[in-house]
Amino acid sequence: MNEDLTYILKEQHDLSVIGGIGALMGWDQMTYMPKAGSSDRAEQSAFLSKLSHDRVIADPFYDAVQRLQEKNIFTTLEEPQQHIITRLHKDLKKARKVPSTFVEKMAKTTTLSYQAWEQARSANKFSVFAPHLEAIFDLEREYISFFDIPGPAYNTLLDDYEEGMTVDILNKEFTTLRKELTSLLDTITTSKHYERQQPLDLTMEETQQKNLCMKVIKTMMLPEERARLDVSTHPFTTSLGDNDVRITTNFSRPNPLFSLFSTIHEAGHALYELGVPKGCYKDTVISDAPSLGIHESQSRFWENMIARGMPFWQYFYPELQQIHAQLQKMPLEVWYQHINQVKPSLIRVEADELTYCLHVILRFELEQQLINQEIKIGQLPDQWNQMMDEYLGITPDSDINGVLQDMHWSGGSVGYFPTYAIGSIYAAQLYQQLSKEHIDLSTHIQQGNFEQIIDWLKNHIHEHGRLFTADELIKNTCGEGLNAHVFLNYLKHKYLPIYEV
Amino acid sequence: MNEDLTYILKEQHDLSVIGGIGALMGWDQMTYMPKAGSSDRAEQSAFLSKLSHDRVIADPFYDAVQRLQEKNIFTTLEEPQQHIITRLHKDLKKARKVPSTFVEKMAKTTTLSYQAWEQARSANKFSVFAPHLEAIFDLEREYISFFDIPGPAYNTLLDDYEEGMTVDILNKEFTTLRKELTSLLDTITTSKHYERQQPLDLTMEETQQKNLCMKVIKTMMLPEERARLDVSTHPFTTSLGDNDVRITTNFSRPNPLFSLFSTIHEAGHALYELGVPKGCYKDTVISDAPSLGIHESQSRFWENMIARGMPFWQYFYPELQQIHAQLQKMPLEVWYQHINQVKPSLIRVEADELTYCLHVILRFELEQQLINQEIKIGQLPDQWNQMMDEYLGITPDSDINGVLQDMHWSGGSVGYFPTYAIGSIYAAQLYQQLSKEHIDLSTHIQQGNFEQIIDWLKNHIHEHGRLFTADELIKNTCGEGLNAHVFLNYLKHKYLPIYEV
Repeated sequence: MNEDLTYILKEQHDLSVIGGIGALMGWDQMTYMPKAGSSDRAEQSAFLSKLSHDRVIADPFYDAVQRLQEKNIFTTLEEPQQHIITRLHKDLKKARKVPSTFVEKMAKTTTLSYQAWEQARSANKFSVFAPHLEAIFDLEREYISFFDIPGPAYNTLLDDYEEGMTVDILNKEFTTLRKELTSLLDTITTSKHYERQQPLDLTMEETQQKNLCMKVIKTMMLPEERARLDVSTHPFTTSLGDNDVRITTNFSRPNPLFSLFSTIHEAGHALYELGVPKGCYKDTVISDAPSLGIHESQSRFWENMIARGMPFWQYFYPELQQIHAQLQKMPLEVWYQHINQVKPSLIRVEADELTYCLHVILRFELEQQLINQEIKIGQLPDQWNQMMDEYLGITPDSDINGVLQDMHWSGGSVGYFPTYAIGSIYAAQLYQQLSKEHIDLSTHIQQGNFEQIIDWLKNHIHEHGRLFTADELIKNTCGEGLNAHVFLNYLKHKYLPIYEV
Repeated sequence: MNEDLTYILKEQHDLSVIGGIGALMGWDQMTYMPKAGSSDRAEQSAFLSKLSHDRVIADPFYDAVQRLQEKNIFTTLEEPQQHIITRLHKDLKKARKVPSTFVEKMAKTTTLSYQAWEQARSANKFSVFAPHLEAIFDLEREYISFFDIPGPAYNTLLDDYEEGMTVDILNKEFTTLRKELTSLLDTITTSKHYERQQPLDLTMEETQQKNLCMKVIKTMMLPEERARLDVSTHPFTTSLGDNDVRITTNFSRPNPLFSLFSTIHEAGHALYELGVPKGCYKDTVISDAPSLGIHESQSRFWENMIARGMPFWQYFYPELQQIHAQLQKMPLEVWYQHINQVKPSLIRVEADELTYCLHVILRFELEQQLINQEIKIGQLPDQWNQMMDEYLGITPDSDINGVLQDMHWSGGSVGYFPTYAIGSIYAAQLYQQLSKEHIDLSTHIQQGNFEQIIDWLKNHIHEHGRLFTADELIKNTCGEGLNAHVFLNYLKHKYLPIYEV
């Protein structure tokens, strides 16, 4: 084998190994680590990050990749190797544009900023967080200056999470989405059915919740020898190796169904992680997702299209009724309406399927205004509250329930939020396509048979890893790119009958 | 600060960080890792081991230490720095005598050997393991050849686990111990009380066991923000950082008290780990135990001297009775006799406090015979069985219950077993000394007040780390070195009354 190629594959392998170790440290920190372990863990994480970063940006590594990129050598490579080199070249070129001094500055700023965000939440005071947020947005603008991605500055931030996505595309789709969602919401909230709707009065012991979650991940065929479920404050999925994916949930939220739906959501991510290409792509840049939107499409698909649908509960409701005596008298139809209640809420992560994207669009708009310096940090809470009123008809009673609710900005993640809405739209597009190709889909779900669905997702999404961009992947599968109308159609077909409008 | 010193302390720090990460990987592997994660984990562990080993044996590191060792520079160092450099110099000189090629060969051999040991256990056939054990002992002899430690070859192996310990010292103490223990055992097993003794008929739910274990570690003042208890096949203690120590137990053993006593045992190790010196010794070679015997003395002290003693149960029995209704009718004296039953058993880890050391001495004798090639590997099972009969009056019915029971040899740990008996002896010596210095010891224990004990162990053992050798530490504390008579006296005073002889 070509000497450069051997060296590159070894580096890729080691970086993947380091990545797996880092994932274990992160997982442990969120699940089992004793409190006082945090300062040692911070040093361990910093050590590993440096180890990884130094190797990613090392000149000999990039030089080797560049040599293989040269046409006369590139053409001698086998096809999978060509894919790896092309992808790696793009990634490295991008990573090397950011000076190490900036990476360090960002790391320090976000550490302080996260602490300030927590303090601000304790004190319910945005002003505690404001100067740190200012520093973060200054750094984001500095970050943008390292690149020459065309169009609005915000495109550069988007590109990190959703390669190739632009403000233009999102403006078009999100404008449609916002207008139609607010109109749909208006139709629903003025309906008779909405007036009568009551919150679900249900309590569930932790062990009941846990049993239910274990049942559902078994139903979703998440292999127990390759995956596990634990508990953390905020649910997440992380991959420690090709055959070791961990998901988490939380059994102590006020809503007893939080654990079930978040487990299904994370299991959707986990199936994806377990399905990304191995073999000749193991431990390489290809063995990953092309974008966060695609990753989110997998979790949303399972959480919403499948697990909030009637066929799923035709199968699963008897299981739930067995676990929970209180539900034995509640008809399936009533249950179905309960888990699909629409109601504007202040908190994004508690939002229903229909209003969720309005929370995302609000953040997308605000992030652009801040990046473009159209508003000042000090104006943010007011602006937030005004837009909440405009989009959802409700106004936060406090900063905690408003502008301070998400941790993303404190960690320097700007441009991230849109991927949640992109994921919802892609999920609807995939669901529509799958339904077209398998007219017996509902029957399979009613029977608790998810093999067909998992295989379809694997064949169309999972096993392609990063061989295509998100846009290519969706076009190849669904015949068109991001299309908010498909998602809106799905919502209308589902929710108008529920609200009898 | 001296440039060499800065560099050395940075290396020490990084090695400690890598050690903490490695401990996390080991802990996770034994507790939560999904089965199929093992091959990726093996690569992650190998990667980290190499990273650590390469830095330990790097020439610049050793050269810097040597330069600081030179008298005119050494005397300019502060006292703690002198301790660090002296200790480090010894450690590195030793580590550098072993060629990297040998380390790799040993790693490969033990990996195969461990698998063969597991297969041999499944098949209950020593012959499956024999050729691998032969290879291990060949490597052990090769290992010995790298050093010039005086006396019998076995001294070199001992020195790795119990620095400065020799066959001469152990022969003397273990001969006394073996003779007196077999005689004491004979007295007990021929007593009327022994004839009448019945095994404890007790079942305990996992949640009951868990509650009990959580109570006992609270009683032992193991701080919950710095330590945690989980479940693994074999109980162990591991340190992930200065403020993050993890212990494990197992709730599925046939003996329902296994979890309680193993938790106490591991909590004894954990208190030690949390107590080793920090401050100027943080992340250095000093912040550790001088020997495995000393470490084991801490676990045995709590498991046996404290938690199998009458004063402890005067305090703790009512707690247990609250958890377990079946015991509400059993008088404390009967309970005390039950948990202190002497009965020769085939399996070391199930042995009672009195017969335990006979299992260890048997292994000590056999290891020497194998190292000195006085017997052949093929003779081992017969030799084992003969000695079991001689020492304990029972003969294994199968290899699993005999020569195949311990994993130590398959991992290349030869010379390790004696530290278990050394720990038992040291524990008795520490207990005797503590009792002398605190005549109100029993009263404190009866009241569930362990602060005095923990402080005493901290002041005399924990906080000295590796500033002294094991021998120095015990001499400083108890006025004499290893003395089996103290342990024998303790056993006689405890067990002769129980068996009314």
